[in-house]
Amino acid sequence: MSFIYNADPERGREWQRLFEQRAPDIAFRVWPDIGSEENVRYLGTWAPIEDLERFPNLEVIFSLGAGVDQFDLDSIPSHVPLVRMQEPGIVATMQEYVAMAVLTLHRNLIDYIDQQRTSTWQAWRVRPASQCRVGILGLGQLGGAVAQHLTGLGFACQGWSRTRRQQEGVACFAGDDELPSFLSTSQVLVCLLPLTDETRGILNAELFGQLPHGASLVNVGRGPHLVTADLLAALDSGQLSAAVLDVFDPEPPPSDHPVWSHPRILLTPHVASMTQPESAIERVLDNIARHREGREMVGIVDRRRGY
Amino acid sequence: MSFIYNADPERGREWQRLFEQRAPDIAFRVWPDIGSEENVRYLGTWAPIEDLERFPNLEVIFSLGAGVDQFDLDSIPSHVPLVRMQEPGIVATMQEYVAMAVLTLHRNLIDYIDQQRTSTWQAWRVRPASQCRVGILGLGQLGGAVAQHLTGLGFACQGWSRTRRQQEGVACFAGDDELPSFLSTSQVLVCLLPLTDETRGILNAELFGQLPHGASLVNVGRGPHLVTADLLAALDSGQLSAAVLDVFDPEPPPSDHPVWSHPRILLTPHVASMTQPESAIERVLDNIARHREGREMVGIVDRRRGY
Repeated sequence: MSFIYNADPERGREWQRLFEQRAPDIAFRVWPDIGSEENVRYLGTWAPIEDLERFPNLEVIFSLGAGVDQFDLDSIPSHVPLVRMQEPGIVATMQEYVAMAVLTLHRNLIDYIDQQRTSTWQAWRVRPASQCRVGILGLGQLGGAVAQHLTGLGFACQGWSRTRRQQEGVACFAGDDELPSFLSTSQVLVCLLPLTDETRGILNAELFGQLPHGASLVNVGRGPHLVTADLLAALDSGQLSAAVLDVFDPEPPPSDHPVWSHPRILLTPHVASMTQPESAIERVLDNIARHREGREMVGIVDRRRGY
Repeated sequence: MSFIYNADPERGREWQRLFEQRAPDIAFRVWPDIGSEENVRYLGTWAPIEDLERFPNLEVIFSLGAGVDQFDLDSIPSHVPLVRMQEPGIVATMQEYVAMAVLTLHRNLIDYIDQQRTSTWQAWRVRPASQCRVGILGLGQLGGAVAQHLTGLGFACQGWSRTRRQQEGVACFAGDDELPSFLSTSQVLVCLLPLTDETRGILNAELFGQLPHGASLVNVGRGPHLVTADLLAALDSGQLSAAVLDVFDPEPPPSDHPVWSHPRILLTPHVASMTQPESAIERVLDNIARHREGREMVGIVDRRRGY
């Protein structure tokens, strides 16, 4: 019985050590050295794997990241559940990245980086976080945790989701009807939506036009949420003042793409959150135990909904 | 009876409005339009003011910033107390700046800013804040508040002060004897010391050599705490990996100074914290009431100690 790991090799060594300590009955193998195809019981992977029919005893596919939009759900046999990674390391690192991004925007760091290039010493008015309203687009597990963290930092927080959520200290908006009033009061907008047909291209000129003039954007969702040309136009017109992008379409952007050199954009290479093997192993082993005992696993993807 | 304001004019208008609402018996005047010298009872100033003897009825000088090192204490008549600004807006904005700076260093933002210049998409390993130990040099009112805030963000925090402090969740080191063990375990060092003869030049090659290899620095104290040439050498040797500097000596640095263009330095123009008129007015009016009633004011500078 084997667990096949198919992701970053550095962290793969940590996974291997943890598996050997915690689950010695499961052979841990690193892709492409998979051994006997018949032995493969579990796949842990970030990227989709083709031709899954060759693993006759495959029982579960564990996505090693929080998102599953990289998978073609129709290509996964219907008897094999796909499980998203929900583990505290992903949540903590996402909270910390968004805190950094929102503070960076609120405290004019993008201005100062630009001013440093021209030896310009000019201070911008400082206001406490309590005077800045942050809107979280997508109040799921990650969005809710991010809203809670930003509230703890003193920011005024509000969130929007497709179906209504309740969260203490966070003004919750829901559905298409309430999107305009949510947007019109979000000085910093953070996208944490899942990528589905409904959300593709949602960060576009029409949405930017509904934000307060000079608002800023953090995209930690997926690259295809954003219509890049619309962002560049909104930055150049001043409707948006700055953006922090951790995702892009495509990744990486072509080396001559204006997103690299735009003075109002900070670009990071898809590092907002990262699965932490030492906490993720708990989730995977718990899910394996649940599966063996016939209990429901945590994070099973609803194929109709797409996440 | 007048209060003379001598600092940033934009915030001066906010102070004026607040004074007119809250203390209509005190004439609020903005430097240099001081009116009758005999009427001057209170000076609120960031910069030192010369020739104070011309104000025969001067009772209190309020520094409008947290630090008082800009004042020549010997030039202030001994019967006129100098009061530091201690108000929640300064504390909150300092906590938020340091959170931004420490997250920026912990999450490799300086690397990503540099990589963006060359269209390089390279991810660095992400670890949660709990795996990063931050050392606060100076555990006074601001340092203690910063340590508490960083602890709330999940960072492992420790602090050093001349005399021992106690703070829940923060490992407290004190005095010269304990400085080496404090430094050797601080992956990010934050300077929040007051500037005195004892602390001038404390951020030097000897101190940097005691930090873990690849540690990073945040200076939100004063420019003269730092020996700039030693910082540049430590960055170039790799002993330090990066620095965020909000203060410098002199401010601004000469336009051809290497601090502007160094790829491992983020420089901001002395904006880490800023007195917020709407909260600072409470402190000033409370101190004026205390002074009139013969009670001790909050934040009186000890001239022997220098802060």
